[in-house]
Amino acid sequence: MNNSFFNNLTEPTLLLDENKCRQNIKAMCARAKGAGVNFRPHFKTHQSHEVGRWFRAEGVEKITVSSPRMAEYFAEDHWKDITVAFPVNIRELSRINELASKIQLNVLIENEESIQYLTQHLQHPVGALLKIDIGYHRTGLNPQNVHQISSLLKSIDESDKINALGFLGHAGHSYKVRGRAAIHKVHKESLALIRSLKDKFQEDYPQLMVSIGDTPTCSWEQQFQGADEIRPGNFVFYDLAQWRIGSCRFDQIAVAMACPVVAKHPERGQLVVYGGGVHFAKDQSHLLDGQTTYYGHVVPFQEGHWGTPNGQNYIASLSQEHGIIQVQAAVMDQYQIGDFITILPIHSCMAANAMKSYQTLDGKVLSRL
Amino acid sequence: MNNSFFNNLTEPTLLLDENKCRQNIKAMCARAKGAGVNFRPHFKTHQSHEVGRWFRAEGVEKITVSSPRMAEYFAEDHWKDITVAFPVNIRELSRINELASKIQLNVLIENEESIQYLTQHLQHPVGALLKIDIGYHRTGLNPQNVHQISSLLKSIDESDKINALGFLGHAGHSYKVRGRAAIHKVHKESLALIRSLKDKFQEDYPQLMVSIGDTPTCSWEQQFQGADEIRPGNFVFYDLAQWRIGSCRFDQIAVAMACPVVAKHPERGQLVVYGGGVHFAKDQSHLLDGQTTYYGHVVPFQEGHWGTPNGQNYIASLSQEHGIIQVQAAVMDQYQIGDFITILPIHSCMAANAMKSYQTLDGKVLSRL
Repeated sequence: MNNSFFNNLTEPTLLLDENKCRQNIKAMCARAKGAGVNFRPHFKTHQSHEVGRWFRAEGVEKITVSSPRMAEYFAEDHWKDITVAFPVNIRELSRINELASKIQLNVLIENEESIQYLTQHLQHPVGALLKIDIGYHRTGLNPQNVHQISSLLKSIDESDKINALGFLGHAGHSYKVRGRAAIHKVHKESLALIRSLKDKFQEDYPQLMVSIGDTPTCSWEQQFQGADEIRPGNFVFYDLAQWRIGSCRFDQIAVAMACPVVAKHPERGQLVVYGGGVHFAKDQSHLLDGQTTYYGHVVPFQEGHWGTPNGQNYIASLSQEHGIIQVQAAVMDQYQIGDFITILPIHSCMAANAMKSYQTLDGKVLSRL
Repeated sequence: MNNSFFNNLTEPTLLLDENKCRQNIKAMCARAKGAGVNFRPHFKTHQSHEVGRWFRAEGVEKITVSSPRMAEYFAEDHWKDITVAFPVNIRELSRINELASKIQLNVLIENEESIQYLTQHLQHPVGALLKIDIGYHRTGLNPQNVHQISSLLKSIDESDKINALGFLGHAGHSYKVRGRAAIHKVHKESLALIRSLKDKFQEDYPQLMVSIGDTPTCSWEQQFQGADEIRPGNFVFYDLAQWRIGSCRFDQIAVAMACPVVAKHPERGQLVVYGGGVHFAKDQSHLLDGQTTYYGHVVPFQEGHWGTPNGQNYIASLSQEHGIIQVQAAVMDQYQIGDFITILPIHSCMAANAMKSYQTLDGKVLSRL
């Protein structure tokens, strides 16, 4: 069976290239520093104490997560200032309260009901960011609706359990564009929306800050004028979706799934691997032809590292545990039953979430939430 | 917050209606008995000791799983005859060997390399089924390729570690059809393919049996002539994909996801819930208009049970933790921030796999692998 690197692996395994990952972290730290904004990385992508410590080594002190449970996990590893960047789920009051007793916990507010509920039931104060819809239209307050936003800020003012910290936006529509110019347009427009909101409230609430930052815009932009903080997450690993948007190069993608080959069908150019939707998740993209759906690109693996995909070898379909890999004849010949084949994922956040741990290229196993 | 049933729930929770589930189990047991075939249900859908025991209570003794790890989990709960219905992953030799020392373990074979590897390295014998492609074209041996199949059977004969048990097929293409007539056509054609193979080898290998059985065909067909065993799995819960195919009624679907409402956007008829791709997985389908992509149907929840979807309230999009629910105005009014909303999943196997446990309607928490 191929390559001594894989000797101890038996099942689909998420490989992590620590060097690439640390480079991604360093680059984003430098970018935030250069732009003069606070860097509060989103940890939902990696969900790992160990990877979190690579950020800490670069001076990061404040983080973003997507649930109180994830906040608990990172609080256990001594993170003291955590924003849960998801509209506050008041059902999780006791977890929120417990966290707020120990760390600076910040929640997202976008309705009066949450303010009233937290005010009545919390025992420890939390910071609050108003969630603003800056063009993605997934959720958040309409920034034109100054009356509603003003009313929420007043309610927060009246609460002894909630401290207004600022406005938070996520330009998730940047995931739908392609190329630097289009990313820049999203950045400019979404930042203008939230900045103008800050300006409107400047006189009454001079302390309110602005938090933005998705991976595509944060990977390109040098300036975040009007923002005080950026919160990208995916950049820590990047993936094929980000490559397609134009956020990264192939050689910045820091995770790859290694899957055992279990069957070969040379007559239709397909390998079958143990590695399905329960490992990769089912995020899909299109090949450069714009038509062919695919779920990941095969990369060569040599001397303990993976290389660059040529675009001709890809996951054509995924079922629960089966991956069907379309390969060129020469690639078909390279892989035998029992060999591992290495595949870049479409969406690293979802693939990492589906897997229980990471295997670094130098043999460490990193656990996660 | 709505409905005392949800009082102790805080996060997205996979509800399980034990009565519906037990009815599904009983019905399939009766069907197998009526058809005179062995019933070896696939346990990858539920992956739960407790649900497994509901099968045992109906007299089921032999099961199917999709990985050696899942076989280990069920062997721990005293299942003694387990088929791993996935092309054998020779990297998992030691787990296979350990299992084979304790139980009747059956593996899937579709190439010479696996036979040679197992013969050389196994210490305990396993049963083997030749995986036959009966029309799905995901993997398996071409049933026309009698020469290759004959050659593999000879190799197995020569092995003192592998005992040939029969031919196994999975008519997964039944998932792509709609309606009873189309399901029947898949059933007839796929069964004919594998039966003719059995006939060809009848003289030399009279002991070889035939194992088939996907949820759509097993939900409709009364006869499995030529088959000795059926292995459906999804039917234990069913889901919207099976409903769309025509395998089940809404009131047979035995799992539903309860998600907390965290934001309301009446101006666009959308609720935002805590419940995303990490909970539902990202399997999608189309509404009856054939065009609108959706990820689950809202069902009313009253007096401890969920009702029937009306098709007008559905998950319009999923990101990692966010679910965006498109609802009618009347439904929008029914749900407040902090309420739970209950949603039938598209693909119950993937949703169950994404979740860590089940909550039954009478308050039990069932763990899973």
